Amino acid sequence: MIAQQHLEVATRGRGTYDVTRSVADSVRDSGIRTGLCHVFAHHTSASLILCENADPTVRRDLEAFLARLVPDGDRVFDHTDEGPDDMPAHIRAILTKMDLTIPITAGRCALGTWQGIYLYEHRTGAHRRQITVTLQGEP
Amino acid sequence: MIAQQHLEVATRGRGTYDVTRSVADSVRDSGIRTGLCHVFAHHTSASLILCENADPTVRRDLEAFLARLVPDGDRVFDHTDEGPDDMPAHIRAILTKMDLTIPITAGRCALGTWQGIYLYEHRTGAHRRQITVTLQGEP
Amino acid sequence: MIAQQHLEVATRGRGTYDVTRSVADSVRDSGIRTGLCHVFAHHTSASLILCENADPTVRRDLEAFLARLVPDGDRVFDHTDEGPDDMPAHIRAILTKMDLTIPITAGRCALGTWQGIYLYEHRTGAHRRQITVTLQGEP
Repeated sequence: MIAQQHLEVATRGRGTYDVTRSVADSVRDSGIRTGLCHVFAHHTSASLILCENADPTVRRDLEAFLARLVPDGDRVFDHTDEGPDDMPAHIRAILTKMDLTIPITAGRCALGTWQGIYLYEHRTGAHRRQITVTLQGEP
Repeated sequence: MIAQQHLEVATRGRGTYDVTRSVADSVRDSGIRTGLCHVFAHHTSASLILCENADPTVRRDLEAFLARLVPDGDRVFDHTDEGPDDMPAHIRAILTKMDLTIPITAGRCALGTWQGIYLYEHRTGAHRRQITVTLQGEP
Repeated sequence: MIAQQHLEVATRGRGTYDVTRSVADSVRDSGIRTGLCHVFAHHTSASLILCENADPTVRRDLEAFLARLVPDGDRVFDHTDEGPDDMPAHIRAILTKMDLTIPITAGRCALGTWQGIYLYEHRTGAHRRQITVTLQGEP
């Protein structure tokens, strides 16, 4: 049994956007009891992460860390066509990955208590980001 | 055909814990010949990695690298509720990921010769970590 | 429905090798219309990434960044049996991961417009790298 759904996330620039509810709804709607939920971002400058979902400071600290690790405008970068955040966005996306797979157990997206699913926009400007959710398993 | 198993790993604090044997046993017990084995840690401060399995120095060097990359007590972090290793644990888990998928070929978990599966505890204290193994494929 | 294929990539040392076409061909040959395509590298010093596929400068900048982040010959490393690039290769592979899952939609590997699939060789010398592609879904 397989189902596939499409989500679009309109970002307002760099930062994390909670998509946990949308993904959990896709799982519930699928009727799958035991299986896997795959989430995929069709981009090279936005990614998907599992992150602590209770204190927004965690995601602010994560952003502060990544901004220091992969500095905008770093002179090591030659690919700067779209500005100082262009190449850092590609690297941040590769380090945090565009694909994510979560178990489905008892008909639910079996996240841990503190796990939320976030689209991570790495460009400083607003973008429309495309996500595909694929659900496989048994009813 | 689908099967799902649960593992618990009692950690003694920061470091890697070999779960290769448990995952391989789940694959063998499932009776699946061709398919995929998905391993998932239900946490935001522990992760799952594939790492060289022969020389323990590799995992010690990895830990030394990560400890330097994401320093405990770094002043860039505001989220310090649970101590200086709290926020670094979240970042280390995001950089090394909580989900992992391995092919099943000829009824076996088709790891490379030098690949082992490790739960990576990123907190300095001991924790009980929950893992779900999901197996999909054909007998 | 499930299919599995094997690919071998002969690398000429450190850098990225485009395997998008081979993976896309596996998807098309499988006859699966809706499902998932899993790609796996059986190694601990080579990995798989999704990266921008239009401007080769992006992959050169990525390499420059990683070479600075995980320096060859770093004195923090004790595991140096196979040379100064040995331990950095393990860490680079863990940070960029050996497994990758992409949706199959309408019979095609549903990559974003700018996403290419690359094997990333992290050793400085040439190697033969083994990849397994597993395809699951419905015709």
